Amino acid sequence: MRANRLREIWAQGRPAINAWCNLPGGFSAELMAAMGWDAVTIDTQHGLIGYTEMLAMLQAVSTTPAVPLVRVSWNQPGEIMRALDAGAYGVICPMINDAAECAAFVQACRYPPDGFRSFGPTRAMVYGGGDYHAHANTELLTFAMIETAQGLANVEAIVATPGLDGVYIGPSDLSLAIGGPPGQDSDAPALMAAFETILQACQAAGVKAGVHTNSLAYSKTMVERGFDMVTVGNDARYLRSGGREASDMRAWLAAR
Amino acid sequence: MRANRLREIWAQGRPAINAWCNLPGGFSAELMAAMGWDAVTIDTQHGLIGYTEMLAMLQAVSTTPAVPLVRVSWNQPGEIMRALDAGAYGVICPMINDAAECAAFVQACRYPPDGFRSFGPTRAMVYGGGDYHAHANTELLTFAMIETAQGLANVEAIVATPGLDGVYIGPSDLSLAIGGPPGQDSDAPALMAAFETILQACQAAGVKAGVHTNSLAYSKTMVERGFDMVTVGNDARYLRSGGREASDMRAWLAAR
Amino acid sequence: MRANRLREIWAQGRPAINAWCNLPGGFSAELMAAMGWDAVTIDTQHGLIGYTEMLAMLQAVSTTPAVPLVRVSWNQPGEIMRALDAGAYGVICPMINDAAECAAFVQACRYPPDGFRSFGPTRAMVYGGGDYHAHANTELLTFAMIETAQGLANVEAIVATPGLDGVYIGPSDLSLAIGGPPGQDSDAPALMAAFETILQACQAAGVKAGVHTNSLAYSKTMVERGFDMVTVGNDARYLRSGGREASDMRAWLAAR
Amino acid sequence: MRANRLREIWAQGRPAINAWCNLPGGFSAELMAAMGWDAVTIDTQHGLIGYTEMLAMLQAVSTTPAVPLVRVSWNQPGEIMRALDAGAYGVICPMINDAAECAAFVQACRYPPDGFRSFGPTRAMVYGGGDYHAHANTELLTFAMIETAQGLANVEAIVATPGLDGVYIGPSDLSLAIGGPPGQDSDAPALMAAFETILQACQAAGVKAGVHTNSLAYSKTMVERGFDMVTVGNDARYLRSGGREASDMRAWLAAR
Amino acid sequence: MRANRLREIWAQGRPAINAWCNLPGGFSAELMAAMGWDAVTIDTQHGLIGYTEMLAMLQAVSTTPAVPLVRVSWNQPGEIMRALDAGAYGVICPMINDAAECAAFVQACRYPPDGFRSFGPTRAMVYGGGDYHAHANTELLTFAMIETAQGLANVEAIVATPGLDGVYIGPSDLSLAIGGPPGQDSDAPALMAAFETILQACQAAGVKAGVHTNSLAYSKTMVERGFDMVTVGNDARYLRSGGREASDMRAWLAAR
Amino acid sequence: MRANRLREIWAQGRPAINAWCNLPGGFSAELMAAMGWDAVTIDTQHGLIGYTEMLAMLQAVSTTPAVPLVRVSWNQPGEIMRALDAGAYGVICPMINDAAECAAFVQACRYPPDGFRSFGPTRAMVYGGGDYHAHANTELLTFAMIETAQGLANVEAIVATPGLDGVYIGPSDLSLAIGGPPGQDSDAPALMAAFETILQACQAAGVKAGVHTNSLAYSKTMVERGFDMVTVGNDARYLRSGGREASDMRAWLAAR
Repeated sequence: MRANRLREIWAQGRPAINAWCNLPGGFSAELMAAMGWDAVTIDTQHGLIGYTEMLAMLQAVSTTPAVPLVRVSWNQPGEIMRALDAGAYGVICPMINDAAECAAFVQACRYPPDGFRSFGPTRAMVYGGGDYHAHANTELLTFAMIETAQGLANVEAIVATPGLDGVYIGPSDLSLAIGGPPGQDSDAPALMAAFETILQACQAAGVKAGVHTNSLAYSKTMVERGFDMVTVGNDARYLRSGGREASDMRAWLAAR
Repeated sequence: MRANRLREIWAQGRPAINAWCNLPGGFSAELMAAMGWDAVTIDTQHGLIGYTEMLAMLQAVSTTPAVPLVRVSWNQPGEIMRALDAGAYGVICPMINDAAECAAFVQACRYPPDGFRSFGPTRAMVYGGGDYHAHANTELLTFAMIETAQGLANVEAIVATPGLDGVYIGPSDLSLAIGGPPGQDSDAPALMAAFETILQACQAAGVKAGVHTNSLAYSKTMVERGFDMVTVGNDARYLRSGGREASDMRAWLAAR
Repeated sequence: MRANRLREIWAQGRPAINAWCNLPGGFSAELMAAMGWDAVTIDTQHGLIGYTEMLAMLQAVSTTPAVPLVRVSWNQPGEIMRALDAGAYGVICPMINDAAECAAFVQACRYPPDGFRSFGPTRAMVYGGGDYHAHANTELLTFAMIETAQGLANVEAIVATPGLDGVYIGPSDLSLAIGGPPGQDSDAPALMAAFETILQACQAAGVKAGVHTNSLAYSKTMVERGFDMVTVGNDARYLRSGGREASDMRAWLAAR
Repeated sequence: MRANRLREIWAQGRPAINAWCNLPGGFSAELMAAMGWDAVTIDTQHGLIGYTEMLAMLQAVSTTPAVPLVRVSWNQPGEIMRALDAGAYGVICPMINDAAECAAFVQACRYPPDGFRSFGPTRAMVYGGGDYHAHANTELLTFAMIETAQGLANVEAIVATPGLDGVYIGPSDLSLAIGGPPGQDSDAPALMAAFETILQACQAAGVKAGVHTNSLAYSKTMVERGFDMVTVGNDARYLRSGGREASDMRAWLAAR
Repeated sequence: MRANRLREIWAQGRPAINAWCNLPGGFSAELMAAMGWDAVTIDTQHGLIGYTEMLAMLQAVSTTPAVPLVRVSWNQPGEIMRALDAGAYGVICPMINDAAECAAFVQACRYPPDGFRSFGPTRAMVYGGGDYHAHANTELLTFAMIETAQGLANVEAIVATPGLDGVYIGPSDLSLAIGGPPGQDSDAPALMAAFETILQACQAAGVKAGVHTNSLAYSKTMVERGFDMVTVGNDARYLRSGGREASDMRAWLAAR
Repeated sequence: MRANRLREIWAQGRPAINAWCNLPGGFSAELMAAMGWDAVTIDTQHGLIGYTEMLAMLQAVSTTPAVPLVRVSWNQPGEIMRALDAGAYGVICPMINDAAECAAFVQACRYPPDGFRSFGPTRAMVYGGGDYHAHANTELLTFAMIETAQGLANVEAIVATPGLDGVYIGPSDLSLAIGGPPGQDSDAPALMAAFETILQACQAAGVKAGVHTNSLAYSKTMVERGFDMVTVGNDARYLRSGGREASDMRAWLAAR
């Protein structure tokens, strides 16, 4: 089975850099994957990406060495298994509130006896190789998102879930959960304390900690703080950067 | 944030007129939205509309002032949130049986602390504006469908759900629920009594009442009866009207 | 090979009734085809229909006995052949100006030695049957549109093209060609004279004459006038009929 | 309502032969359906098939007499109902563990009072006919998959579910469930014993038994063993057979 | 008919700012259009955009005041007319070599008697309004690209084409045409001389001059030089800008 | 620029093995490409493949080392250039009748000064690399199909076209051209003589000769005869092979 490069990177003690896809379509995903990130996550929760697009994007990412990850829209076994069958090498599951939810998520990613994933890796075997079944339970990654008040309260139980590989922090939801605004790249003390709580729980449990960021600078800060994976790249952010050029051009024309 | 015109219409004491889309694809949705209805509902339950088509149809409706609504296929938080993130300004949820189901539905539409909607209004901010988060919980509409025997029995508890904006009646299912046939535009006394029960419960609770119809005439009757929103327009009904021309032409040719 | 029902109808001396699809997508095409028309034409010229949609629509029409026709966007051999390979049982070609253009069109529809169609009926054999090659040149229909001033002037030469099965009149373009407005269902004398010229040329040459209409009534008139095929059904017209309901409802509400 | 040919076949005491579609897209489905199988199942669990593709494939199957079935991705009412509304004449539901899950599945397929299916057979009425509602509860087929250890243990209770028409065995999952490898077409004694347990339970309860196979030979064996439906055809298997030609050609070239 | 804002801007003596779409899909087009550019061009020549995507993108642009333009892939009447029928308010045609080619292009955009555009503005009337036919010939814009050696030699004849509204320069092709490299934003004297030749010919003929650029800075320079339209925005350029972040992050990690 | 493996194979004096895709969609293309063929051709002439699907299939092929080729539907520069911009590493052009047509085809594939290809390798640079422009004219392959009587008569002039890399024989069309039936894998003397004429002309001119086959056995014969490229793999052929299983099963059941 094709090895999971994220596991290799972590085995070397290095942090991984991830890019995030919210735009539907294979070409933008291919452009993102070709930039050289360690992983590319296809966001089927807040991204505008249906099943058809997710599949095309997983193929597009597969033209590069980047590890294809999928964020599912909810903790639903059918959806989780379909992402894996389509070739995702890891799943990020939003809104995990407690250990039971986390176990349900992780077990949906693992074949028996470790879980209850149904067998049928239609594209996954094309991407991963003929011995996919023998290694899938140990190669594929499971990330639970801790981003609710309840999830934060249960962080220690969640990270102790057998088979869980890591936690991924969604800062906007986590900030809302503790009464803050939804903005990104915050250094609000309460939010930073929540980050720290999660990070320490992960380290204590021996699972990885990842975090969503909205800039290169914040990503570096998060690496320095000890996160094992930071999401730097973001297709919608790059595309929206054009808005500044439009404003600048408009202002320049008005001033002529 | 772009105001929700349905709220404005109701604030003026006027009923709203809605059109319904069952056909997949952006062009038919654009034609429907361009007719001048107050709202256009994209039906992802009984309509032949997947996520990809829903997104395209929300964009098509956005070329007009019509308020974009989505009927989800089931009371599932991931699906509800995806419709909102894609720019729906209201969600109609089928088959609400009791207050707990209704609360789960409504809370899936509201950011904390009012609910548990996850933050990531990828397209919703493009459509709604940069201050979307500040107003989304009060602008976006939530309609519970009461159309099962259990739902009818629990109507008072359902309409009392905090954050619920209205009830939408699906006459076929409601008729089946009380032992009748699935037809539309009925004036069967038992069904009319059920309508009245729901309508009075809505009025008592201060929430809006909407109803699906199959003709212009029945829509008018329902407005006169006090409904706040009637679904008049229906893409599949308009398209199917061609069948009468085919029959007429066939008969005319046979008679020549 | 599956017989071409239009040829059978004409062999019985009866006129054929056709429906027109401008809306992209398989479901609207299936609804149209299920109405009972003799033929359904997928309009890839003015319809909003790309290759992908045309293929899906040909499949949808194939769920019924209606004969699938395609109007191509222009007299281009690659495009014409692709429509036939996808299963069209006839092609309507716009804007034929003279006999040379007509011959190029017809020959693109016929295998050697009658023409230069390239062999590869990928889906056509699934729809038509294993002996497709043996009968395609005589079963498939070719309609040239005469709708330009030049085409009208050359009508006798055009209808004499070997292998041409019929002429199809596009009234809007023909009206523009003779200095009139683009409207449909006209009885403007000059336009009617042009219709008559074409019709008589067709009858003299022994080819069929078809005409586009915008109503049931005008279709009947055209049958009585002697046309062999009239297009009655029209998906966009049916869908747009909803606009009248919107206006009526709006006026009714305003008058309350 | 169009009769369900599978019921007719079984009424004649004959076994039915099914084909399986994992490849997305209407043309491959049409090719499969045109081969002459009694039924064609569109697999939206392990197949790479989203809603959009499923709809197109149901249309493609409808160009032939093959009965269109859908395997849903999970026991979710919204998804099950959408498959039926799109025209599936039967649903195969994976991973049924006990009688309660089976009842939930079956009732999602049945209109009240037999179940809680919501009324809106948008395409189903086009395919099935105008009297669809009157017969849907008795024509449409429900197959529960027994493929987990828990399901196997509860087989007798599951097959006793009112309204259940049959059981479908997924050999790979069933093998995993009893501690075996995921391979197909096995004759491992433990797996064969599980087959026999399920088959006898079905026969005792008067429901049909179907089984997934990976070859023509194994299908015949299963028919002889008493199964009522065997899945012989498989689009991905046929396509992948090309790999042998590639290897053979490569070896032949190397040996020249 | 909805007025063409580009004509209004030019009537006020102001230059227009355009954005360019190479990525397929409605959401990226909507993001681009929402930035505030005067026009958005959907590039179906070098962009990865088929007919289906072009239509969705024209709808997406129509959610904003930006004028929708299309660059066609080649000077083909069927393709040009389809872009206009889908709602483009202007067409940019590549590789115009001489006055005859230019006349063929322009006439494909104009209804008789000015040209030979076929009548059927299926979506164009939805976007433009019911009186589309009365104004289309004067509202819709035609841009010929001068980017070949032959085109450059014939620039004066080309710009004299009746009905031509402007010239659009593709710097890469123009540079290749005069023996240079394909790069953008060049100040190579030979290329600048070619720009000047074209610009002066346009000004002498009273047609507009537009130019493709690859940066905000170069766009400003081109405005100062006298161009009437500059393409500043570019979706693929914005998206690719993420590559710098990936490199920076990679270098930063390596240096830790 | 990524090297063209077909050129490398030929430089080593080895024949290349190609697979052919007629089914639309990225997953079937990925399955085909993963089998280990030297090249995979996406057939947009007789295949049921529109632009959107072609792009997805080129991406799917790019997940493997197979060289992506495209057969265009006709000798049209816009279409040819779009296939190359999407990442095709070679183009097969049907129905080349003479040297002028061949020159037009080849020049559409080459940047100035060798041809008139327009610059804008949007995806081609992602696949090929940043120095794409410097090497594209020498890396990308051009194959003319000789399959008409006229083409056969002009074979020597055609193969002498500067920049032409090879000829590809379509046996069905070539057989029709010389008065035979359209079947494949024929050994009819007249057809074999035509093959030999073309092969010798290619060898004399120093260009490659490729041929379409319908079986492994015929492919081997063609390699032995001296062809440089044989098309062995064929997705539709593999899929259709299932028809034999259906017939066998049906016969077996009938005989029980």
